[in-house]
Amino acid sequence: MAKVKTIGILTSGGDAPGMNAAVRAVTRTGIYNGFSIKGIYRGYDGLLTGDIKTFTTENVSGIIDEGGTILKTARSKAFMTKEGKEKAYENIVKEGIDALVVIGGNGSLTGAMNFAQEYDLCCIGLPGTIDNDLYGTDSTIGYDTTLNTIMECVDRIRDTAQSHERIFFVEVMGRDAGFLAQNSAIASGAEAAIIPEDSTDVDQLARFMERGIRKSKKSCIVVVSESPQCGAMYYAERVKKEFPNFDVRVSILGHLQRGGRPSARDRILASRTGYGAIEAIMQGQRNIMVGVRNNEVVYVPLSEAIRSDKPFDKKLIKILDVLST
Amino acid sequence: MAKVKTIGILTSGGDAPGMNAAVRAVTRTGIYNGFSIKGIYRGYDGLLTGDIKTFTTENVSGIIDEGGTILKTARSKAFMTKEGKEKAYENIVKEGIDALVVIGGNGSLTGAMNFAQEYDLCCIGLPGTIDNDLYGTDSTIGYDTTLNTIMECVDRIRDTAQSHERIFFVEVMGRDAGFLAQNSAIASGAEAAIIPEDSTDVDQLARFMERGIRKSKKSCIVVVSESPQCGAMYYAERVKKEFPNFDVRVSILGHLQRGGRPSARDRILASRTGYGAIEAIMQGQRNIMVGVRNNEVVYVPLSEAIRSDKPFDKKLIKILDVLST
Amino acid sequence: MAKVKTIGILTSGGDAPGMNAAVRAVTRTGIYNGFSIKGIYRGYDGLLTGDIKTFTTENVSGIIDEGGTILKTARSKAFMTKEGKEKAYENIVKEGIDALVVIGGNGSLTGAMNFAQEYDLCCIGLPGTIDNDLYGTDSTIGYDTTLNTIMECVDRIRDTAQSHERIFFVEVMGRDAGFLAQNSAIASGAEAAIIPEDSTDVDQLARFMERGIRKSKKSCIVVVSESPQCGAMYYAERVKKEFPNFDVRVSILGHLQRGGRPSARDRILASRTGYGAIEAIMQGQRNIMVGVRNNEVVYVPLSEAIRSDKPFDKKLIKILDVLST
Amino acid sequence: MAKVKTIGILTSGGDAPGMNAAVRAVTRTGIYNGFSIKGIYRGYDGLLTGDIKTFTTENVSGIIDEGGTILKTARSKAFMTKEGKEKAYENIVKEGIDALVVIGGNGSLTGAMNFAQEYDLCCIGLPGTIDNDLYGTDSTIGYDTTLNTIMECVDRIRDTAQSHERIFFVEVMGRDAGFLAQNSAIASGAEAAIIPEDSTDVDQLARFMERGIRKSKKSCIVVVSESPQCGAMYYAERVKKEFPNFDVRVSILGHLQRGGRPSARDRILASRTGYGAIEAIMQGQRNIMVGVRNNEVVYVPLSEAIRSDKPFDKKLIKILDVLST
Repeated sequence: MAKVKTIGILTSGGDAPGMNAAVRAVTRTGIYNGFSIKGIYRGYDGLLTGDIKTFTTENVSGIIDEGGTILKTARSKAFMTKEGKEKAYENIVKEGIDALVVIGGNGSLTGAMNFAQEYDLCCIGLPGTIDNDLYGTDSTIGYDTTLNTIMECVDRIRDTAQSHERIFFVEVMGRDAGFLAQNSAIASGAEAAIIPEDSTDVDQLARFMERGIRKSKKSCIVVVSESPQCGAMYYAERVKKEFPNFDVRVSILGHLQRGGRPSARDRILASRTGYGAIEAIMQGQRNIMVGVRNNEVVYVPLSEAIRSDKPFDKKLIKILDVLST
Repeated sequence: MAKVKTIGILTSGGDAPGMNAAVRAVTRTGIYNGFSIKGIYRGYDGLLTGDIKTFTTENVSGIIDEGGTILKTARSKAFMTKEGKEKAYENIVKEGIDALVVIGGNGSLTGAMNFAQEYDLCCIGLPGTIDNDLYGTDSTIGYDTTLNTIMECVDRIRDTAQSHERIFFVEVMGRDAGFLAQNSAIASGAEAAIIPEDSTDVDQLARFMERGIRKSKKSCIVVVSESPQCGAMYYAERVKKEFPNFDVRVSILGHLQRGGRPSARDRILASRTGYGAIEAIMQGQRNIMVGVRNNEVVYVPLSEAIRSDKPFDKKLIKILDVLST
Repeated sequence: MAKVKTIGILTSGGDAPGMNAAVRAVTRTGIYNGFSIKGIYRGYDGLLTGDIKTFTTENVSGIIDEGGTILKTARSKAFMTKEGKEKAYENIVKEGIDALVVIGGNGSLTGAMNFAQEYDLCCIGLPGTIDNDLYGTDSTIGYDTTLNTIMECVDRIRDTAQSHERIFFVEVMGRDAGFLAQNSAIASGAEAAIIPEDSTDVDQLARFMERGIRKSKKSCIVVVSESPQCGAMYYAERVKKEFPNFDVRVSILGHLQRGGRPSARDRILASRTGYGAIEAIMQGQRNIMVGVRNNEVVYVPLSEAIRSDKPFDKKLIKILDVLST
Repeated sequence: MAKVKTIGILTSGGDAPGMNAAVRAVTRTGIYNGFSIKGIYRGYDGLLTGDIKTFTTENVSGIIDEGGTILKTARSKAFMTKEGKEKAYENIVKEGIDALVVIGGNGSLTGAMNFAQEYDLCCIGLPGTIDNDLYGTDSTIGYDTTLNTIMECVDRIRDTAQSHERIFFVEVMGRDAGFLAQNSAIASGAEAAIIPEDSTDVDQLARFMERGIRKSKKSCIVVVSESPQCGAMYYAERVKKEFPNFDVRVSILGHLQRGGRPSARDRILASRTGYGAIEAIMQGQRNIMVGVRNNEVVYVPLSEAIRSDKPFDKKLIKILDVLST
């Protein structure tokens, strides 16, 4: 394997706060260590179209505190195809890129892993997703900011819920993982959460209603993980039918959850893992994700990072139940 | 007219940030000047049910920075009826209340005016509504906080819009008044606003699309005043049909716009008008709203305050057009 | 007088949040109306050194939500001299600048007025200062943001003050004008303010101590306008001497008061006055400041704007006294 | 050992955001599990004076999002003495308290450990300190909020630093531990940090000046851990002497770092460890601190938790150096 000289960097999938801090860290650490850094625009699409630019340290000035991603992002369908990958590899060769740093979530890192295997390329993943659903890292870049954003929104909604004595169903992101819903419910003092991890065996709403609505509290907030069938609207309708006396409202937080200035934790996580990505390349690592566990930088094989069974601490469900009494 | 000794205070209609600061100001200024203050719960409903409590200065401690209203609020249908008003007046007499301070929006102050006329009562209104649609005051309590909340949400959404190069339609409150939509669009650097004040004579979306989508910008944000028929969803669908290549998204901010810690301006406005309400009572004023114009406290007859034609500066439409070029 | 074709713009004096929004508004409105816009760096210093650059609409993209000023700023001593002004005028002629828009506070607009008179130049001022000490405009660009920043800091300090039952003296900006101190004290529910407007005839601390420390409250916060001799430290020492049992602390907020993302109000004020500056030039106005009074854009002669006697509503002192009981 | 029936809870030392969330979690989890909960006011002083009150779940309503501590806090000198501890134990017996939950930092937990040993009492510690200097937990309650507060302050100061092209020395809390200074410097993109962990062997300022001021950057920010001798003021004076051309400023953030609404992470940490404290008591644990490591609740012997050598990742120093290039 030839020595790496040029490193390409891209952000892919849904944008997450802290992606810019990661781009900055990879770029500056790379240049500091003598590499040439090339920014690839719009995720894997930029590899296909050749929308690629050499970066200096100035290109990443003043972005550590900005949400979104200066590299833009996309979910590339073309890259899924055989022809797409071929075209991408052609551009990689043409640009002289020896290693690829991919910042993204589960789907994006799966794409990186497959690409790396097929074309014998060095791919390093950084966990960039608000969903926190990557295995092997305590947290993902963007998760902490979004958790705080949701909490602040629920703090606001509680003002109205209490003033009007209403029941609110607040829908948050995290289709396949309830980390955001469960933890934001605990953090905001909500009365309940409805999450995918807890949905197979019990009817969470029924349990909540038995336990909760009978209480002396006159207003309450239920945080619901988004879901095509059973989102906040579905639960609100059910409650309205069974308890027509309640004033039930729905709030779907939507896209504002993705944006905003990254929290300290996300900026630091992005800085440490971005720095770690270059170290990993210098150590000859390949096809791993850089994460932080137990406050230490770790390398996780991409195949392990994308495992779907990131452990969810079921005790958090009990904690929410008890603390909202 | 006998001398006022006891003053009742209530919050009514939609809650607005700063209502608590107003309750605090009325209570403390009233007590300072020798009045007895009675807090009435759940708006006019509390007058009907007699849910009324004597307040000390401690009752309003630590609330100046809290959203919502410690007095709770409601939209009372019962108070609209003849029997309701009779019952309310009975309780007023029973509690010895000589004057009523009502903090609320257009509907609540209309209720106060009618009640005051029918029962020859002293009613003082404070402009408590996020919509800013009361005549005779430069701003209403809650408007500034909500304007900032919307702006921060759009700031967040812009991160995602730019990263993914999307068109966002963001729906905000203000069914009958476009102050929130137009001004938050200017403040957040949005590309356009669609507001009720501008909707009769032109098709605002068509004008925007001619002017805006042809521009070099690859992402854009349109702020839309909520509307039963023509909200953000309606415009998004139209754009999707005419420009199928665009990635169009909708975000409905909803109830979170009402809550949150009040801004400095709202706390000061609430403090000044709350203080002014007691001064007005001491001067023998009746059936006026206390507002601030040109940085001075003013008294506006309730009949004038609820006029539907609060002037909307049409030049703001032009300013937004020019500044988003 | 020849028709204006090229407009120079600079920011001068202490930076204020919203200056960037003003630079954006002047630039885009100017270009929209056919003018050429030139950005001058580091205030008047840039006129002397010729650090001047032609601006396009892109130069002001993405800055409406940024604190500070992309044009940089300075307090130029050289420009005060005869030679300095001569040199500045030479560069103005060389660059073909026909009109100058100056965004700054009292000192900067005084400089603009003198320069305009000596060299028969069209100078338009925008009120850019956190101190709110310009006559003829209800508010200045930056004042609202700083007021909110101070309020949030005092909100934080109150948590500690109450937990430890301490007296805090919090020093804020506004050497010559107590707008920030008095209004932030009202907004944050502080117990007292010590301001220059109230300092000649009474001993504010003595009055506060008589009135305040005897109260049942165990913690309290006094907001103090900065002052070379009598800042927060001076008052804290006095209280410590007279009341050795109290736990007295000082917090000097300092430079963080200047920065931060501008509030909605400041961005709108900057947008409206920036737009108004170009309108004024097109109407042939000269040597005026553009302000907003009573929610309408107004032109104020520079000589009037810099008058030192912007009225301070003494009733605010009484309001704070009463509301903190 | 008799079965625990009544649990006392107190907060001690410097207040930290999230202490209230911990008080809420201990109280509600305790009551849920059949314990009687007694709130002790003003830290150990409340044990001496007997300022103790039985808590219901309502006593901790609406406090999860509040900074400071509703139990007040203090640094008790009397409790340090033999007589003090005796008096405290008398009151514990008198109130029927079988176990004590102490929320505080290093000093407070040392006090708890000594008291527990001398009087054979069950003491459970919760890590409540902004300094993050307790061993055996990844983070302490309050640390994350304060880190974000500092970062936001530095973000603001950077606006001014860049606009005026100045060097700022920003002094932050953390006399004995540089976690706050080092990590806030990374998060805010500061140019350097000066911390106690790095101070024995090298002159951090000299290293920074060699490395940093020669760079093309015209403004820069150095975050300094507070120190009686070598705070921000000391370093600013040195730089002024050696580089008289630079415009050097100092900002001492002070007490505002302690307050404010707790971050999501601090509220969750407080909720989990507060819940864990009751579990620990039910399991017969004694004289341990409840922490979270690697995302799991852990018990750490008090003697270990207060060890002074919480590991500081020296690589963070290198990361800051490289990323600020």
